[in-house]
Amino acid sequence: MVDFAQARQVMGNLPYCRALGIEIVDLGPGWAELVIPYRDDLIGDPATGVLHGGAVSALMDSTCGTAVICHPDGGVGTATLDLRIDYLRGATPGQALRARAECIRVTRTIAFVRGTAHDDDTGSPVATATAAFTVPGAAA
Amino acid sequence: MVDFAQARQVMGNLPYCRALGIEIVDLGPGWAELVIPYRDDLIGDPATGVLHGGAVSALMDSTCGTAVICHPDGGVGTATLDLRIDYLRGATPGQALRARAECIRVTRTIAFVRGTAHDDDTGSPVATATAAFTVPGAAA
Amino acid sequence: MVDFAQARQVMGNLPYCRALGIEIVDLGPGWAELVIPYRDDLIGDPATGVLHGGAVSALMDSTCGTAVICHPDGGVGTATLDLRIDYLRGATPGQALRARAECIRVTRTIAFVRGTAHDDDTGSPVATATAAFTVPGAAA
Amino acid sequence: MVDFAQARQVMGNLPYCRALGIEIVDLGPGWAELVIPYRDDLIGDPATGVLHGGAVSALMDSTCGTAVICHPDGGVGTATLDLRIDYLRGATPGQALRARAECIRVTRTIAFVRGTAHDDDTGSPVATATAAFTVPGAAA
Repeated sequence: MVDFAQARQVMGNLPYCRALGIEIVDLGPGWAELVIPYRDDLIGDPATGVLHGGAVSALMDSTCGTAVICHPDGGVGTATLDLRIDYLRGATPGQALRARAECIRVTRTIAFVRGTAHDDDTGSPVATATAAFTVPGAAA
Repeated sequence: MVDFAQARQVMGNLPYCRALGIEIVDLGPGWAELVIPYRDDLIGDPATGVLHGGAVSALMDSTCGTAVICHPDGGVGTATLDLRIDYLRGATPGQALRARAECIRVTRTIAFVRGTAHDDDTGSPVATATAAFTVPGAAA
Repeated sequence: MVDFAQARQVMGNLPYCRALGIEIVDLGPGWAELVIPYRDDLIGDPATGVLHGGAVSALMDSTCGTAVICHPDGGVGTATLDLRIDYLRGATPGQALRARAECIRVTRTIAFVRGTAHDDDTGSPVATATAAFTVPGAAA
Repeated sequence: MVDFAQARQVMGNLPYCRALGIEIVDLGPGWAELVIPYRDDLIGDPATGVLHGGAVSALMDSTCGTAVICHPDGGVGTATLDLRIDYLRGATPGQALRARAECIRVTRTIAFVRGTAHDDDTGSPVATATAAFTVPGAAA
């Protein structure tokens, strides 16, 4: 388990997250909240200006991973085993996307994580995530 | 259904794919092959140089979507409903990642797609994808 | 959308659910709660007496489907498109399993549903479900 | 890794599989083929006579698990971590359903498995499965 400063440092060192502008908003034991900005180079469909699903997925993956890093039984060095994203609706153009993920269960080898992403309309989620991550320390 | 030139034009217009360097390698009726280069800004873990899961996911999403665009019953305007990625192993640093996806079944509203991604070691896949996409023309 | 009596009648007519003893506990607009009993013929592992994953999956599938039936924009005639079950831990032998599912979003063609199953230890879920269902009336 | 006789014995000891009539057809290193009969009590929709999704899921789960049991790096005692089923079409009433699964990759803790199920129309799959299983011996 890491604290906010350590988690931010881990994230700041990940080139892909830095390139996409993904940042930690808040975190606690076994949960995390991250944000990705709205930027022209993250657009999936130029006709609508909607964020690309890959940007949503990168945000979700990073948020779930941070939740594992922050879990008392987790830690730095976790890796995504599998990740399902459900794209409920297109994110509203011009708005940042914020995701929150929490560990549902952490065994000696596996962390089960769920997440949800919102734009400014907090009543209608943009996407949900369901994932399994490795637990650092366990043999991969 | 679109031909190679049209599909390449559609892809070339997607800012996120352009930003990541994702390109179409080949395609046919209901299947597509795309590639993402190895680049420093796509690295997930600076300690190992392994590509970020989000880059793999963006490649997979784009490849599956292109397979739907290229299906006789599909077409331009498809959207990802849900996407599962299994991360079998880290991609070897320095190598491009190539994905191939094909439509398993296309109904009037839904396209079921599966994909696989490889680096230079073609005998050991890096990731698999399982996804459902909307079929353009059907009401979303 | 159907009421409790109608939903119970729909479920009571499904041979597989009747054979497994799955019953509706409660429901409302876009959500449902169902239960499967602990029975010897539903055991997966005779050494531990733990329910088979297929029994958990049948419960989850039925609960998610009932949530769609009960949604104001859903209705009788929905079908499962895809369903992911995460098996967080084995259910405690001797205890019934209760699942609750709710529609996260319902479009004109697709219903996104999430669910959770518990045994008597309500603080530690046994399994989660993430699914997409067809919306009756839309072309399949 | 187990041989055919051992695998059949393991399966024959699983009450849920026995109750559903699931049987092993064939197997080899890291793959397995199982069948579920068409039976009235496995019907999901009495109006159409189509098998219940839960029966398809039970077959898929069992087939994937058997593939892990039969893998040189797997063995008896594996458990399903997560399982995604895509329901491509309803199985034709009156026909048995046959599934084939293979391990895509087996690490020290996780086995990644994919499967496909067919009825008599072998050109058009009824369902696909994508799953992660524990590897016996590794800490769960």
